[in-house]
Amino acid sequence: MKVDLNCDMGEGFGPWPMGDDEAMLDIVSSANIACGFHAGDPSIMFRTAEIAKRKGVAVGAHPGFNDLHGFGRRMIRGDTPAEIERMIAYQIGAMQAVASLAGHKVTYVKVHGALNNMANEDEDLALAIARAIKGVDASLMNVCMPGLLMEKASHGVGIPVVREIFADRTYEDNGTLTSRKKPGSVLHDADFAAERILRAVQDKAVTTVSGKRIPVEIDTICVHGDEPSAVVMARTVRAKLEANGVTIAPFSG
Amino acid sequence: MKVDLNCDMGEGFGPWPMGDDEAMLDIVSSANIACGFHAGDPSIMFRTAEIAKRKGVAVGAHPGFNDLHGFGRRMIRGDTPAEIERMIAYQIGAMQAVASLAGHKVTYVKVHGALNNMANEDEDLALAIARAIKGVDASLMNVCMPGLLMEKASHGVGIPVVREIFADRTYEDNGTLTSRKKPGSVLHDADFAAERILRAVQDKAVTTVSGKRIPVEIDTICVHGDEPSAVVMARTVRAKLEANGVTIAPFSG
Amino acid sequence: MKVDLNCDMGEGFGPWPMGDDEAMLDIVSSANIACGFHAGDPSIMFRTAEIAKRKGVAVGAHPGFNDLHGFGRRMIRGDTPAEIERMIAYQIGAMQAVASLAGHKVTYVKVHGALNNMANEDEDLALAIARAIKGVDASLMNVCMPGLLMEKASHGVGIPVVREIFADRTYEDNGTLTSRKKPGSVLHDADFAAERILRAVQDKAVTTVSGKRIPVEIDTICVHGDEPSAVVMARTVRAKLEANGVTIAPFSG
Amino acid sequence: MKVDLNCDMGEGFGPWPMGDDEAMLDIVSSANIACGFHAGDPSIMFRTAEIAKRKGVAVGAHPGFNDLHGFGRRMIRGDTPAEIERMIAYQIGAMQAVASLAGHKVTYVKVHGALNNMANEDEDLALAIARAIKGVDASLMNVCMPGLLMEKASHGVGIPVVREIFADRTYEDNGTLTSRKKPGSVLHDADFAAERILRAVQDKAVTTVSGKRIPVEIDTICVHGDEPSAVVMARTVRAKLEANGVTIAPFSG
Repeated sequence: MKVDLNCDMGEGFGPWPMGDDEAMLDIVSSANIACGFHAGDPSIMFRTAEIAKRKGVAVGAHPGFNDLHGFGRRMIRGDTPAEIERMIAYQIGAMQAVASLAGHKVTYVKVHGALNNMANEDEDLALAIARAIKGVDASLMNVCMPGLLMEKASHGVGIPVVREIFADRTYEDNGTLTSRKKPGSVLHDADFAAERILRAVQDKAVTTVSGKRIPVEIDTICVHGDEPSAVVMARTVRAKLEANGVTIAPFSG
Repeated sequence: MKVDLNCDMGEGFGPWPMGDDEAMLDIVSSANIACGFHAGDPSIMFRTAEIAKRKGVAVGAHPGFNDLHGFGRRMIRGDTPAEIERMIAYQIGAMQAVASLAGHKVTYVKVHGALNNMANEDEDLALAIARAIKGVDASLMNVCMPGLLMEKASHGVGIPVVREIFADRTYEDNGTLTSRKKPGSVLHDADFAAERILRAVQDKAVTTVSGKRIPVEIDTICVHGDEPSAVVMARTVRAKLEANGVTIAPFSG
Repeated sequence: MKVDLNCDMGEGFGPWPMGDDEAMLDIVSSANIACGFHAGDPSIMFRTAEIAKRKGVAVGAHPGFNDLHGFGRRMIRGDTPAEIERMIAYQIGAMQAVASLAGHKVTYVKVHGALNNMANEDEDLALAIARAIKGVDASLMNVCMPGLLMEKASHGVGIPVVREIFADRTYEDNGTLTSRKKPGSVLHDADFAAERILRAVQDKAVTTVSGKRIPVEIDTICVHGDEPSAVVMARTVRAKLEANGVTIAPFSG
Repeated sequence: MKVDLNCDMGEGFGPWPMGDDEAMLDIVSSANIACGFHAGDPSIMFRTAEIAKRKGVAVGAHPGFNDLHGFGRRMIRGDTPAEIERMIAYQIGAMQAVASLAGHKVTYVKVHGALNNMANEDEDLALAIARAIKGVDASLMNVCMPGLLMEKASHGVGIPVVREIFADRTYEDNGTLTSRKKPGSVLHDADFAAERILRAVQDKAVTTVSGKRIPVEIDTICVHGDEPSAVVMARTVRAKLEANGVTIAPFSG
């Protein structure tokens, strides 16, 4: 049994750091690197890719809205799907070039924050993103939440899909994440989260807040990097999986 | 006899247009497309690349300082060469991806404005830029002013060089352009400029303000696109060259 | 009879101009100056305020979302009302200081684009904006569409209100503007628009697309400055009003 | 005997914090608040002003280059003095308005980083900054290094000057700070720095690296807030001064 662990990284900007990327790169097998639009800059992207290369961690482009101030978490409405398509291509290409300079190679894309949420609610947007990925490099894999519009669009356009679940979030019956605003939607107990993830991987299913079981193929597990407890959570999830015979390795390997 | 005509393009931003790119793309053979740092945005880059493709015009990445407000013409001192290297790679990659989405392909790089001037006065910076280009794609050609540091660095690093002269600018004896602040440094008479360029191409030499003759191989001629008289100047230069048996075609062809 | 004519101005950025502000400043009596967030920069703000001063035109702060790329026309969701409040105060203060440097004085505020639309649909946002204005200077007037939430919030908070109608737009029965997406919602015939505005000023009422008459006190008429026909439209409206005995003068005079 | 302690604050941006402002606001008597150009944003400015108000700490505008990525530490050459003048006025006004919203009042200006250094080497720039301050509010005090061009320009233009020395930096014989690149130029030993500052305050003079004594009136002492040891350094300096009968209070009180 094999699964990937992914984490958002390279989320500093200029003089401002964020998260403990060095530590996380010892734990995860895939690093989603911010591309300078909602976080990150060319030097941070380079350093993250360089360390990832050294540690055998796969790298993906993690594009988002051009919104440093809001960290890509604000919904920005008014761009056409065509505009979003070009903006996504731009960020992927930037990441590819910087990774290349660092001797590494981008193998996948994972869309960030509000843009990802919006794409899972708007088929035209999801298709625009899938076309952007294909237009840049049709072999790039798109990390998607199973069963939602982005996965569907990726299949439609013909790019490879990676199915992801979240280690520290609960699920609604429709397969979306419970809103962060609801109490209990973000898990903070690392052991509890690890146990829950192990079960999901073994059962090939997530259990929703109502107790419903949703069968899913799980290619990768997202652990978060920007909270204080991130490193402990990630380490605990990894240890639990490995202790139960699950190998952690890049999906793109 | 064959020479290329290049022009900076895609220099609008968001709602603000600049220059008459459609008209210029009927005249030039290579389009240097701004990469979103000193001008341009993903949608403008895309449209410019798309029209260039349709009209058989080659496209190059035209990276500059991250300085929309100053249009990349302000000298920004404080970045290390390594930081500049990553910033250049970022922009080239972004342009490659957007061009790819538009069905076109970036074949060269031409550095913009203040950063280009600074690189021709700072060998470490010139080398950083050359390494950035090589790190992204060693077959990309670097458009350089003959005899200056950027050309030297490109040879040193081992990337192909394209030698450029300017249609509307006068030269100093050391091969640099006369400062824009000096009267007469920018030519506005299209016929005079065209005649002068024809002579330079035929003689394989530029004549400086002091009358000195500097022998140069001329691969491409830069015409400017952001002044009202740009289209007339470019058209006149092209007509004069063609009338004298010089073919206009991309250097990268 | 007296009414004000207002126009958005100073909407260039860095090297990119927009609109013919010099011409518009000969026609209108109030200039809404962009504050650098969706358009404008300190130098453009200064020049616009300086010309306005010379021509006897009142100046207002025209704050918007921090969204140069989208020109403040994209809806950005995710800020709290408190965050918007501080962002509006910031822009007003910046405009006050630059106007002061130019020997002029800001007498009013008119919120721009998407933020204005959102405030008229969200009472908390409207109140936040009204509090921002009051917190900076309680004598500043707020330009509002009559009958909508921003006007109500301004009354609630206790700041003076200026009621505005649009010269080139049609109205829905609820007092909002017809969406730009609907055909006919933007008037291009200057004579027709001028005739319509004269009637509204004389009747103290606007007529909606369905023919309904909405009585309104009209303190100011907005003419647009960013379209090619802007100057003609504004000049025609002014001439028609003056020919019928209506004096054009700042509401803040 | 009385002196002020000042510290740069509000230097986060969006999701990225910097420094421990809460702790520093218990130690210093004046807070130089970044104005959103090199750091800071309206909400951070507001919070900083609000806490300062509560703790009886004076607030000043801390304007810099529009350079988030370089934190205002990169020298940006190409603006005219008139452009800088308007940019400074803009930032002061923004800070005044946000402070007003927080119930506080800006009483002084201290220019940040590279722009401050450039102004002390370029009289036209120093005069532009002094004119900007005067144009916004002629009673605002300008924090200057004694004996350099900014102080001279402030006197020339007629705005009040506050003379500042740095707690953790060494001085050259011409009154400038020793370059950060030279070893030993930044003091890290809090006790040593505190002892040195006490002597300077008591003697009304700084001693340079060569041992030269430069007599100076000292109105305020700058302690830094963005390094890990900042709070300890500031606390030690304050304690040493108070233990020796020096009162810490805003210069603007």
